[in-house]
Amino acid sequence: MKKVPQLGDIKKAHERIRPFIHKTPVLTSSGIDAIIGASVYFKCENFQKVGAFKFRGATNAVLLLDDRIKKLGVATHSSGNHAAALALAAKNMGIKAYVVMPETAPLIKKKAVKSYGAEITFCAPTLAARESTLNEVIEKTGATFIHPYNNKDIICGQGTAALELLDEYSDLDIIMAPVGGGGLLSGTAIAAKELNPNIKVIAAEPQNADDAYRSFKSGYLIPSENPNTIADGLLTSLCNLTFKIISEKVDEIVTVSENGIIEAMRLIWERMKIIVEPSSAVPLAAVLENKQLFFGKKIGIILSGGNVDLNKLPF
Amino acid sequence: MKKVPQLGDIKKAHERIRPFIHKTPVLTSSGIDAIIGASVYFKCENFQKVGAFKFRGATNAVLLLDDRIKKLGVATHSSGNHAAALALAAKNMGIKAYVVMPETAPLIKKKAVKSYGAEITFCAPTLAARESTLNEVIEKTGATFIHPYNNKDIICGQGTAALELLDEYSDLDIIMAPVGGGGLLSGTAIAAKELNPNIKVIAAEPQNADDAYRSFKSGYLIPSENPNTIADGLLTSLCNLTFKIISEKVDEIVTVSENGIIEAMRLIWERMKIIVEPSSAVPLAAVLENKQLFFGKKIGIILSGGNVDLNKLPF
Repeated sequence: MKKVPQLGDIKKAHERIRPFIHKTPVLTSSGIDAIIGASVYFKCENFQKVGAFKFRGATNAVLLLDDRIKKLGVATHSSGNHAAALALAAKNMGIKAYVVMPETAPLIKKKAVKSYGAEITFCAPTLAARESTLNEVIEKTGATFIHPYNNKDIICGQGTAALELLDEYSDLDIIMAPVGGGGLLSGTAIAAKELNPNIKVIAAEPQNADDAYRSFKSGYLIPSENPNTIADGLLTSLCNLTFKIISEKVDEIVTVSENGIIEAMRLIWERMKIIVEPSSAVPLAAVLENKQLFFGKKIGIILSGGNVDLNKLPF
Repeated sequence: MKKVPQLGDIKKAHERIRPFIHKTPVLTSSGIDAIIGASVYFKCENFQKVGAFKFRGATNAVLLLDDRIKKLGVATHSSGNHAAALALAAKNMGIKAYVVMPETAPLIKKKAVKSYGAEITFCAPTLAARESTLNEVIEKTGATFIHPYNNKDIICGQGTAALELLDEYSDLDIIMAPVGGGGLLSGTAIAAKELNPNIKVIAAEPQNADDAYRSFKSGYLIPSENPNTIADGLLTSLCNLTFKIISEKVDEIVTVSENGIIEAMRLIWERMKIIVEPSSAVPLAAVLENKQLFFGKKIGIILSGGNVDLNKLPF
């Protein structure tokens, strides 16, 4: 088992990545506050470079590579925000990124990763094909695999969003993040609980991809099988490392319906005039579907990203 | 002819409305800058209360009413952002707003105006019906008609957006605003030219509603007849007051295609992760369609609003 990172590691990560990332704004909406009867502080990682918090972790992980290893490049298999984040982080350091993507990935995602200068290798759309293709790429290039969340440097990078949020608003009652593989949630929980032991860390997860909820409740790691949710950033399952951190530090995991996600997303778009992807709307959906739990509280929510295909909106 | 306002009037308006408005952020996008080869500073009035700059002018106009007159309420005929802005400005002062709207107005606009507590009177969807219905409402209630732009207090309020932008970025080469009735453009031009005589004020207008362009070029006020553009905030024509100001203070009016507006709007949504209405995208469309005019410049653009019907997006 890898050593669990601490607040100090997240603070060091923040110093390290600061020249590369955006310090994203924290926005509020009196309209949304009135609807839920609470005060919400939205940390806008949809405004982060590449449009998602993932750039924090990827930048930290790349910066921490040994120079000799770094120059061989980095690799991952992903069709989502982690791939784009790793591609830009690598480009910023002048090294290569190799991304394995299923042939069936949306054109918009292929373009995004390519636009950051990554070398894409396409494979069949199965996990087995992804992994074997990634292994081939690594064997050929010597690149280092950067896992999207089963990596403490990634987790520390993702935790810097909560660090910034709590630096600006130290008296939050609750801090919330969506949970997919658990990298963002782990980093958030570590930062928040060490900065303020009284804060409640509440995760939100789609009912249709509720492996974290079931694992958290049962005490056993239970991966999702073929999850299907509009929150396409939350299809992945916890790994040992994130499960351990989440079990220790998270207070509650709340699951939400698909309709709830779409309604919360629409509310954010309409009231705040900002674009968030469905995964980002999952925590607000949890608040809207469980108002009694949140009434009167000061709630921080990390809006994880803003990458949506405008041709395929759910409304 | 009404007296043309000066920078001093706009500064006073700013002091007056400051407790009620949002000081909106100025955002930049390295992606958009790279595409156009210039630096753009976007003043985000889509984040203003009611989602549009119109709240600045409406608040200023209502605050300047004599107490005795004010308590009888304010009135307008509009189905757009001015109606919502006037409704909220009135609500903030504890007075009534009467809004005349065509029965055919989109449900979303009826709801918005109602949500700010205005009393709506519906009429047939013609200008004649609007005006006669408004006159009836005014006769019955004694409310004061607040015109959306043929009003110097409105113009001064709208000019405060440029004041804030130039306070933050005083060295802009160019400042741009869309032009419909000309209230925003007039206020912007007055503020900008007095603060910095070397700045170029460039307006942008849809080709399909190009009355300001034709009036500006000919020297005669030529209203649009049945204009039809996706930029629904720019269907109105200049009035004498705004035509006079624009003729004196604006350097150029550039017209843009409907496709150009949609492309610029999409670019803002995708790259900046913010929601702007089509009218807001008109200045960036002018830049994209005339890159040579703007190459290497520091350009301020006022993003006028963010009220779009998510069920009727052009992409």
